[in-house]
Amino acid sequence: MLGDDGLEILTERECAQLLAQNHVGRVAVTLAALPAVFPVNYAIGDDGAIVFMTGEGTKLRAALQHTVVAFEIDGFEPVAHGGWSVMVVGVASELEGGALERARQLPLRPWAGGDRRHYVGIAPELVSGRRIRHDVTAPAGAPSAPAS
Amino acid sequence: MLGDDGLEILTERECAQLLAQNHVGRVAVTLAALPAVFPVNYAIGDDGAIVFMTGEGTKLRAALQHTVVAFEIDGFEPVAHGGWSVMVVGVASELEGGALERARQLPLRPWAGGDRRHYVGIAPELVSGRRIRHDVTAPAGAPSAPAS
Repeated sequence: MLGDDGLEILTERECAQLLAQNHVGRVAVTLAALPAVFPVNYAIGDDGAIVFMTGEGTKLRAALQHTVVAFEIDGFEPVAHGGWSVMVVGVASELEGGALERARQLPLRPWAGGDRRHYVGIAPELVSGRRIRHDVTAPAGAPSAPAS
Repeated sequence: MLGDDGLEILTERECAQLLAQNHVGRVAVTLAALPAVFPVNYAIGDDGAIVFMTGEGTKLRAALQHTVVAFEIDGFEPVAHGGWSVMVVGVASELEGGALERARQLPLRPWAGGDRRHYVGIAPELVSGRRIRHDVTAPAGAPSAPAS
């Protein structure tokens, strides 16, 4: 199925597989009334939440107090001009209690080091994904869909 | 110099170099009051604007009418746990007149094919970049900063 942008729409299952296979994504938030994007390394919690760690006093932590955020992962092939992306929209909140205990069991260590002891979860409310399909939309001679 | 998140802050020149060397980034916008992220392939205009193409009637095009957006590029090394990111915040607008003529000379073709004849420019107002520096913040034994 193609979306209004001419891209193939991924199924819920394909989105879930891509989210499970990848480890770096980007969180988009509003910061002092301006949009901002922060890369994070993440893991998927047992309830399907996107879980990542952040530090005391960071701008990102301040922006994540029960706010609706977008989380995005993607993969692109510069040579073949193929690619895919998955976006999750949901409410971010700092994990506490039992959710925090479960998050501590995830294979998640902040790549950047430093004091990143706070666990943040994004509970997915909307999940969508797209893939460039060259066999449908590309000019003649383009390679066929090596997108994922 | 380190930021409040423990990451090395890139200079303006380093950010400009990374923007010139890369071709895929992500535009973060607000769509029906919710944050959203769209990957785009882009080029840098002669005035330093981030330029990309979009289609008639897409959600992205509707979201880009003289709106402040964030644009982000990054690169990560899953094995070494290194990485960098650059974020540009600025007003997006559809290019017209002379700006459109100049944009048409850029080495820019939409990867996804389809009707993507509209050129959008983001005039940078804030540019910032960060890099993970393992020699500063990582635990002993981590490789030193193969981040870019």
